[in-house]
Amino acid sequence: MGLFSTPIKTMDDLYKHQLQDIYYAENQITKGLTEMIAKANNPSLKQAFQKHLGETEQQIKRLDEAFRMLGQEPKGATCPAIDGIISEARELISDCGDADVCDAAMVAAAQAVEHYEITRYGTLITWSKQLGKNDVARLLEQTLNEEKMTDKALTDLAESNINRKAAA
Amino acid sequence: MGLFSTPIKTMDDLYKHQLQDIYYAENQITKGLTEMIAKANNPSLKQAFQKHLGETEQQIKRLDEAFRMLGQEPKGATCPAIDGIISEARELISDCGDADVCDAAMVAAAQAVEHYEITRYGTLITWSKQLGKNDVARLLEQTLNEEKMTDKALTDLAESNINRKAAA
Repeated sequence: MGLFSTPIKTMDDLYKHQLQDIYYAENQITKGLTEMIAKANNPSLKQAFQKHLGETEQQIKRLDEAFRMLGQEPKGATCPAIDGIISEARELISDCGDADVCDAAMVAAAQAVEHYEITRYGTLITWSKQLGKNDVARLLEQTLNEEKMTDKALTDLAESNINRKAAA
Repeated sequence: MGLFSTPIKTMDDLYKHQLQDIYYAENQITKGLTEMIAKANNPSLKQAFQKHLGETEQQIKRLDEAFRMLGQEPKGATCPAIDGIISEARELISDCGDADVCDAAMVAAAQAVEHYEITRYGTLITWSKQLGKNDVARLLEQTLNEEKMTDKALTDLAESNINRKAAA
C-alpha cells in the first residue's frame, strides 16, 4: 500500500482520489497565498494574490458541491505534488534577499501552482464527462477558466514591471 | 539557509537557480518516463512516452547548451516540486490494480509533469529575454513548444480510448 487508504481499482476510485487530491491542494494553496500576500512587495502582485485567494475559497466551495453531487463527504488526500511545489516556493522566498527578486520568484511559484491546478482540473473534467457526471464537469469548468485567467494575469505581471524592475 | 548553496539576491541568481531546477527536473523525468514506458498497457500510450523520452534527452542537451551560453557548468538543484509530482505518480501507479485504470492514471501524471515543465520554461524564457539572453530564450522556446505538443497529445489520448476503456 502506498498513499491511499483503499487501492485504486476502478475509474471511479481514481476519480474520487483525484477529487480528494485537488481538495487537499486547494486548502494548502489558501495557506500559501496568505503567506505570499504578506510577502509581496509590488501592489499589483499583492492585489492579484488577494483576488486569487478569494477565488480559491470559492473553488473549495465548488469542490464541496462536487462531493455532494457524487454523494460523498468532502475529504482531502495528501498530495505530495502540491506539497513539493509549495515547499519549493517557501524555500525560494525565504532565501531571497531582495524584495523585487522575491516578487519575481513568487510570480513563478504562483504560476507553477496554477499549472498544477490547470492539469488536475483538466483531467477531472475529462473523467467527469467519461463517467457521465456532466453536472460536475460544468462546475469544474468554471474553476478551470479562473485558473487559466489567473495564470494569464501572472504572465502579464511577469512580462511587465516586476521582472524588469528586479533585473534593473 | 534553505535549499540553496548560495542565497538568491539578484535576478541572475534566481535565473541560474531556475535553470538548475529544471535541469534536475528533466533528469528525474527521464527516470519516471522509463518506468512508465515499462508499465504502460495501451500501445499508443507506450509509444507517446517513448517519443517523449527521446525529446526529453534532447531537451537536456539544450539545457547543457544554455549553461554553456551563460558560461556555466551544467548542474542540477534539487527540485521538491518535481520530486513531489513524480512521487505521487509512483504511489498512484503502484496502488493501481487494473491495467487500463493505471494507464489513465499515468496519462494524468504525465500531464502534471508537462504542465510543470510548461510553467518553468515559460518563466525561464521571460527571464532570458528580460536579462538580454535572447539566444537562450530561442533555444528554450523549442523545448516549450515540444512540451505543449506532448501535453496536447496526452489530452487527445485521455479523451479517446484510454479512459473510455477504463470506465467500461
